[in-house]
Amino acid sequence: MAEIVSFRKEAGKTEGLLLRSLHDGVLRLLLNDPPANALSIALLEALMAELEKAEVDSDVRVVVIASTGAVFSAGHDLKELTAHRVDEDQGAAFFEKSFRLCADLMLKIAHLPKPVIAEVDGLATAAGCQLVASCDLAICTDTSTFCTPGVNIGLFCSTPMVAVSRVAHRKQAMEMLLTGETIDASTAKDFGLVNRIVPKQYLAQVVSKYAAVIAGKSPLILKIGKEAFYRQLEMPVAAAYDYASRVMVENMLTRDAQEGIGAFLGKRKPEWKGE
Amino acid sequence: MAEIVSFRKEAGKTEGLLLRSLHDGVLRLLLNDPPANALSIALLEALMAELEKAEVDSDVRVVVIASTGAVFSAGHDLKELTAHRVDEDQGAAFFEKSFRLCADLMLKIAHLPKPVIAEVDGLATAAGCQLVASCDLAICTDTSTFCTPGVNIGLFCSTPMVAVSRVAHRKQAMEMLLTGETIDASTAKDFGLVNRIVPKQYLAQVVSKYAAVIAGKSPLILKIGKEAFYRQLEMPVAAAYDYASRVMVENMLTRDAQEGIGAFLGKRKPEWKGE
Amino acid sequence: MAEIVSFRKEAGKTEGLLLRSLHDGVLRLLLNDPPANALSIALLEALMAELEKAEVDSDVRVVVIASTGAVFSAGHDLKELTAHRVDEDQGAAFFEKSFRLCADLMLKIAHLPKPVIAEVDGLATAAGCQLVASCDLAICTDTSTFCTPGVNIGLFCSTPMVAVSRVAHRKQAMEMLLTGETIDASTAKDFGLVNRIVPKQYLAQVVSKYAAVIAGKSPLILKIGKEAFYRQLEMPVAAAYDYASRVMVENMLTRDAQEGIGAFLGKRKPEWKGE
Repeated sequence: MAEIVSFRKEAGKTEGLLLRSLHDGVLRLLLNDPPANALSIALLEALMAELEKAEVDSDVRVVVIASTGAVFSAGHDLKELTAHRVDEDQGAAFFEKSFRLCADLMLKIAHLPKPVIAEVDGLATAAGCQLVASCDLAICTDTSTFCTPGVNIGLFCSTPMVAVSRVAHRKQAMEMLLTGETIDASTAKDFGLVNRIVPKQYLAQVVSKYAAVIAGKSPLILKIGKEAFYRQLEMPVAAAYDYASRVMVENMLTRDAQEGIGAFLGKRKPEWKGE
Repeated sequence: MAEIVSFRKEAGKTEGLLLRSLHDGVLRLLLNDPPANALSIALLEALMAELEKAEVDSDVRVVVIASTGAVFSAGHDLKELTAHRVDEDQGAAFFEKSFRLCADLMLKIAHLPKPVIAEVDGLATAAGCQLVASCDLAICTDTSTFCTPGVNIGLFCSTPMVAVSRVAHRKQAMEMLLTGETIDASTAKDFGLVNRIVPKQYLAQVVSKYAAVIAGKSPLILKIGKEAFYRQLEMPVAAAYDYASRVMVENMLTRDAQEGIGAFLGKRKPEWKGE
Repeated sequence: MAEIVSFRKEAGKTEGLLLRSLHDGVLRLLLNDPPANALSIALLEALMAELEKAEVDSDVRVVVIASTGAVFSAGHDLKELTAHRVDEDQGAAFFEKSFRLCADLMLKIAHLPKPVIAEVDGLATAAGCQLVASCDLAICTDTSTFCTPGVNIGLFCSTPMVAVSRVAHRKQAMEMLLTGETIDASTAKDFGLVNRIVPKQYLAQVVSKYAAVIAGKSPLILKIGKEAFYRQLEMPVAAAYDYASRVMVENMLTRDAQEGIGAFLGKRKPEWKGE
């Protein structure tokens, strides 16, 4: 059973905004604010708090982010943003807080020493699409759709583009951003936004299999590798090799490398020590 | 009717080298120097002048670059370049002028605050292929072809590679550059060079639809977003988020964001103010 | 007949570890240490020595790297690495030497002034997959497979990721690295790891055709272009154009550009001078 980790603010709503459940090393975070699963301050903060807890919780080996309802996430909460236009500064401080918090969440996903998988069923728009793009892996149903439609409402998806333009080809990212139009799952896979498309009835099962495969690896080695991945991506290639070669030496000197290679050569199953 | 904006230099040619027409916010620039539509100094200067005018002309919301004849563009004018080999400096100054002007044109497309769409029907080679790669979007007919064949004539496509290697995967760009061979439209789409392939009889119609969709957005918001797109691409991800978050706050404080979001929440059509 | 350029160290093995043959400007290097074709220190050094010789040998215009047996290359030699765990420093110095040498080999491929093609038939794993990713072009059979499975044995493929994440989309590279699972040839092509897939019986023929096409270009122009390709990739776009424009001017002033363009305009075959 999922545990409620954040309650909706509005009166009369008693269900949790974000649900968590942890089984066999897989932390499943369920956005539970249908119909839009908007990334309100409350939901962004709840997600951030969960990731911070997951970072130091050795029982968590993989994180899955899923959602309730027909919309994976519609991105920022436009009503919440608009309500702050009456602030003395026309909302500037609140807008800054919102976009900053959202960007920090996306960076946290990359910096988290544990892999994060987006399990997408439905529409992912704007910062919702950014969330999919920001996860290490993304698996979606064949009826899922994606867009960055801010341009339609006078708010270009400038923060979502940071994530989308780093996973997709440039022209394809530009098409989404300039037209605001919605792409289907197959196009999203072609663009590099998602790793795999599955029929709806198999989504949870396939994601669980991916999560279980990854949860079976050494947490220490996943931490070493994931950190190295995002760091080396931003270096010139020669510097990336200097850095990655050092990472490999350190990795070789861990007990888990000794155990893993020993098990492989000895044709037995490794037992990770996490050190 | 298209207006002639540049005349061919050669005696006896009276048609325009570059034609322009402006309808409903869409500026259509037609390369009109068949059979090669070579990017001579005259054509490069005419294109640059048109883009500079388009930049400050509030009637222009989107630019389309198309061409006359079976060749979209064959790139630099080899006869013009060769003619300068008799110069005192063996042509060095003229070559520098040509490549500099061409590079400046490609950068101008990215810096233009208005989206630029390549409408390609036919062969795009060398700097012609670079022009396609440099536009924000590219739509081509199913019989269009693409290549960077400089290596065949002793002049590696080093400036075209700047654009091509930024839209395509690395190995695929390298294949075009090293072999000089021609790829078809479908391969070009796989490589990320074009966004969409359409049958010849629908090309103008589909491009017009894309242009109209984009011309219906707020010009101010397109300007904000397009500038942010190319700037953030060249930043490390954390810096990109710092920058893009600031852009989002500024965007939220524009009247067009207020109008657009208000219209969306009120389920009405927005009326852009451009501020 | 191929010449043996390095002998296997183990007693009783008399065949060559690396075979070389040179025909019509195409140097073919054959990894010949089945079943794994592991990148032992001996094989890495033999490959490096061959590339260094190829760099200054004007008879070599293109390099092909192929292999014997069902495994293209299984990457580092785990037995060799493990044997050094008894060293005083637990193997640190030897590991550093191994990863450094391997990284240097991959960088040498990029810096070599002659194109390098991977001819892949079989499984390419870890540093073997890195080798494929690092070649300028890669052509494989339809039964070839690819993986970066270090995570399975406690040694994340951190150096392979440098090459793989630069040719493939980010999420697709991450999937290979986190799951350690094997992808087929078709997926590898989608990911950008290989240029072309051919049936086994045509592999050598297709690679020979590619090699012959490239060997027919001017070696000087290939050198200019290949160097410019990898250098400009790591620059911001405006700096890349400054640099590439200078390269184009220098290229235009070579005799081979004069010959190549002259031959093209004169509709004759060029005769390269290499200057």
